[in-house]
Amino acid sequence: MCRWLAYSGSPLLLEDLLFKPENSLVVQSKHSRLGVEAINGDGFGVGWYGAQDTPGIYHSIEPAWNDRNLRELSAHAAAGRVFAHIRDTTGSPVQQTNCHPFRHGRWLWMHNGAITDFPTVMRDLTLAVEPALFPGIEGSTDSELFFYLALTIGLEEDPPGAVARAVGLIEEAGQRHGVQHPIQMTVATTDGETTWAFRYSSVGESRSLFHSTNVSTLRAQHPDNPVLHDLSDDTRVVVSEPLGDLVGAWREVPESTCVIIRGGSEELRDFAPRAG
Amino acid sequence: MCRWLAYSGSPLLLEDLLFKPENSLVVQSKHSRLGVEAINGDGFGVGWYGAQDTPGIYHSIEPAWNDRNLRELSAHAAAGRVFAHIRDTTGSPVQQTNCHPFRHGRWLWMHNGAITDFPTVMRDLTLAVEPALFPGIEGSTDSELFFYLALTIGLEEDPPGAVARAVGLIEEAGQRHGVQHPIQMTVATTDGETTWAFRYSSVGESRSLFHSTNVSTLRAQHPDNPVLHDLSDDTRVVVSEPLGDLVGAWREVPESTCVIIRGGSEELRDFAPRAG
Amino acid sequence: MCRWLAYSGSPLLLEDLLFKPENSLVVQSKHSRLGVEAINGDGFGVGWYGAQDTPGIYHSIEPAWNDRNLRELSAHAAAGRVFAHIRDTTGSPVQQTNCHPFRHGRWLWMHNGAITDFPTVMRDLTLAVEPALFPGIEGSTDSELFFYLALTIGLEEDPPGAVARAVGLIEEAGQRHGVQHPIQMTVATTDGETTWAFRYSSVGESRSLFHSTNVSTLRAQHPDNPVLHDLSDDTRVVVSEPLGDLVGAWREVPESTCVIIRGGSEELRDFAPRAG
Amino acid sequence: MCRWLAYSGSPLLLEDLLFKPENSLVVQSKHSRLGVEAINGDGFGVGWYGAQDTPGIYHSIEPAWNDRNLRELSAHAAAGRVFAHIRDTTGSPVQQTNCHPFRHGRWLWMHNGAITDFPTVMRDLTLAVEPALFPGIEGSTDSELFFYLALTIGLEEDPPGAVARAVGLIEEAGQRHGVQHPIQMTVATTDGETTWAFRYSSVGESRSLFHSTNVSTLRAQHPDNPVLHDLSDDTRVVVSEPLGDLVGAWREVPESTCVIIRGGSEELRDFAPRAG
Repeated sequence: MCRWLAYSGSPLLLEDLLFKPENSLVVQSKHSRLGVEAINGDGFGVGWYGAQDTPGIYHSIEPAWNDRNLRELSAHAAAGRVFAHIRDTTGSPVQQTNCHPFRHGRWLWMHNGAITDFPTVMRDLTLAVEPALFPGIEGSTDSELFFYLALTIGLEEDPPGAVARAVGLIEEAGQRHGVQHPIQMTVATTDGETTWAFRYSSVGESRSLFHSTNVSTLRAQHPDNPVLHDLSDDTRVVVSEPLGDLVGAWREVPESTCVIIRGGSEELRDFAPRAG
Repeated sequence: MCRWLAYSGSPLLLEDLLFKPENSLVVQSKHSRLGVEAINGDGFGVGWYGAQDTPGIYHSIEPAWNDRNLRELSAHAAAGRVFAHIRDTTGSPVQQTNCHPFRHGRWLWMHNGAITDFPTVMRDLTLAVEPALFPGIEGSTDSELFFYLALTIGLEEDPPGAVARAVGLIEEAGQRHGVQHPIQMTVATTDGETTWAFRYSSVGESRSLFHSTNVSTLRAQHPDNPVLHDLSDDTRVVVSEPLGDLVGAWREVPESTCVIIRGGSEELRDFAPRAG
Repeated sequence: MCRWLAYSGSPLLLEDLLFKPENSLVVQSKHSRLGVEAINGDGFGVGWYGAQDTPGIYHSIEPAWNDRNLRELSAHAAAGRVFAHIRDTTGSPVQQTNCHPFRHGRWLWMHNGAITDFPTVMRDLTLAVEPALFPGIEGSTDSELFFYLALTIGLEEDPPGAVARAVGLIEEAGQRHGVQHPIQMTVATTDGETTWAFRYSSVGESRSLFHSTNVSTLRAQHPDNPVLHDLSDDTRVVVSEPLGDLVGAWREVPESTCVIIRGGSEELRDFAPRAG
Repeated sequence: MCRWLAYSGSPLLLEDLLFKPENSLVVQSKHSRLGVEAINGDGFGVGWYGAQDTPGIYHSIEPAWNDRNLRELSAHAAAGRVFAHIRDTTGSPVQQTNCHPFRHGRWLWMHNGAITDFPTVMRDLTLAVEPALFPGIEGSTDSELFFYLALTIGLEEDPPGAVARAVGLIEEAGQRHGVQHPIQMTVATTDGETTWAFRYSSVGESRSLFHSTNVSTLRAQHPDNPVLHDLSDDTRVVVSEPLGDLVGAWREVPESTCVIIRGGSEELRDFAPRAG
């Protein structure tokens, strides 16, 4: 099990997201409250959109709470769109190329959950990746392969449609090999402008997912954090688990739902896998 | 807070100690039961006496549960005397030179606990180290400095006496600087033949410490572990917390006590700091 | 470009191979004499056959000359068959899963050279791997994929034949995609009893490869190394470049040749790719 | 031997300094032209003054040429004052706390060279550090201790005077212990506004040091690097070895000299150690 966070809004220092909140992602890396496993010590990643066309990525195989470079980077890099992820591996090696978020051009992707019995379906899914995209796969996770399936199917043109068909493809591959519940997922992807987040699982009991409703709620939740008082009204956060305890500040994303964050608006749509 | 284990007895593979027991040290690195902190993910170390005069040491800054090289080494290195330690830092950097056990010639040393307000007393204690020994200090922990104080005072000739005087020196330094309870410790040291373990704290509420009484108890505790059935009767383990749940298998070491393991015998002595 | 060493003979400490010779592999990691590139700082690996059925493996992403754990392991682990490899990547990430030697059951495999334009032919070659073996691929190198192709074709039954057909398959794939000289290689593989080493390249100008002729020559080469005086007469070393300067101590393996080391005998056979 | 670079001037991306020049610091890490040793693979560090009061620091123990996070950071972080350093250790462990530049408040410090026979004089020099500063020492290098000596003596008030007295102190300690030539150094330090660089050695044959004279020269040197065309006229670089080959672009700093870079002006002063 992993934990992740997708931020969009006023530019802020990464440390204001990763270290300062009461239940920040780095705190969650040692003491997750809602996770199946309380510890997420198998790698950390953050992607941020700064001054360049493509986002920057920092991937670390040290536990997030120990990483001195992460602390330095977080104190100096500011961004208006941030993806961050802490990993708890279910088997694939702990190495930088297996850390989320994954990047392709301007796109980022991160995943909490798993493709069930991945060794069983891995080859079929690998063959389904567009040959021209294939050499871009750097690591050995189910999550990165899932990203490349979605890219193959058209993620950059129609994210909800491509994810729906990629999940359909994964479920078909699973069923072909006798896997009972082929996928468990919360996923976030962005092109740097819009964020799409998905909550779904074949078994119908998906990993937790929340979004902040509006920034005034968030401000109320962190009265002692001066940074948040400067946030613009279009600031939104989607997270595996809330960054703090304030009642009413977070809204759970329902099962089988796609959340679309664009500017200050959020749209919730039903999500269902689609046959290839 | 850290966790440690000191083994002496029949030669066995390191993995039989580090990975196979129900509550093995590697399991404790993620889910310590008795520790102040359940996670010990800030470095790992093992020292083992093999075919050479001086023990081998493996120090890692990855969490123990992720370390592929540790798993390989443990599956291939056998030893009749093993010290192993998982670290949860209270401040000093996570780096190999801060991992326990520390080594000096044939001697190993490891420590759970802390010298209170270490930055305050660090300089005084550093000055107390024998100048000829001084350049041997490689890291920045209180624990290694404690080792060098004991070496300065005569650890190699009279371990219980040297540790008592080193603790006395640490308490005097603390009192000089207004530190209330200057030291918290369980410590183990060995020359490869005898193991000395200490449980003490200035406040009188020391970290937990246990020793296995005799090997037949240990065999009963691990009925499914065939390796333990081949252990000689002089096998003994001293640990921060028991490696399993069997009632009666482990005996708690009392407060302010020194345990001496030599062959199959254990001797318990009262331990008290001694003025320098 | 990489450098490697395959040792068989009297059990010795790894350090006698890796650190002590005048031009040892660790020396070569900083100052290779014959390599295209003098530095091989992109990962290190050693595989050794100890007391277990399967060999142990140590993979490191630090430069070999800095690795304290490697030095400790080498001072304490003894083996009668050792594979060691220093890596100079041509592109794939520096991570433990990309370090040689690769292991499958009792077998080890290491490679110096490259599959030319690997991204172009990678997908075709991946599809050629036996589906049941496919999930065993952990890294992203051409060298590991080459190993899995050979395993697919029957490495464990007929090593020279399987390597010949794997090379044939790689050359066919290259030609299909317009790659001019599809492969450059020296390869070593072993089941722990026999070592097979190959020198071949499509262009006909292969990486250097040498074998020691007999142990009395090796003894003469290292008069100051007492360990070598205890070596049995069946001791043999196959290397990318000689471990020392003594004239006559090393014999170059000719182009397009397979060397088979079994006990104290070496057999040289012509090697040519075979169509799939 | 190490290599370093001190940049001040127009804000630019770190990659324009660290990766893009023909003989960039990352190139020098594998192929230094003027160094005693061509390889500097024992750690890398960069300090940069961004939006915060104190500079950011990135320290890595991987060779600079392999570090994916360094490449990402360099592509996204811009600064008008940058210190960068590649390390070739002469003995102290390769760990982040031994990487340059070292930081104290707003100050950075980096050093190429060595305190001769450091283990011999280390204790004396350690005792000379101001007790209140002492706990700030994190690593075990001669270079960081040198920094703390200078801080003790008044680096923040009078940099040339404090460095002169710190060198005096080091030479006295060396002479007391019979060390022939106690120090070899090029050093750079900055408060974020002014850079002071020093070239000195007890033996009178110091490590190389160069400064760029004016930015139009630098522009001429890198005609293909569009970034440099936007540099302001006050841009200056001080380096262990030139970043490129253009005749006339670099001026060697004479022996026993202190260079002061403030805005677009450079001042050269004689430098000599001063007795404590």
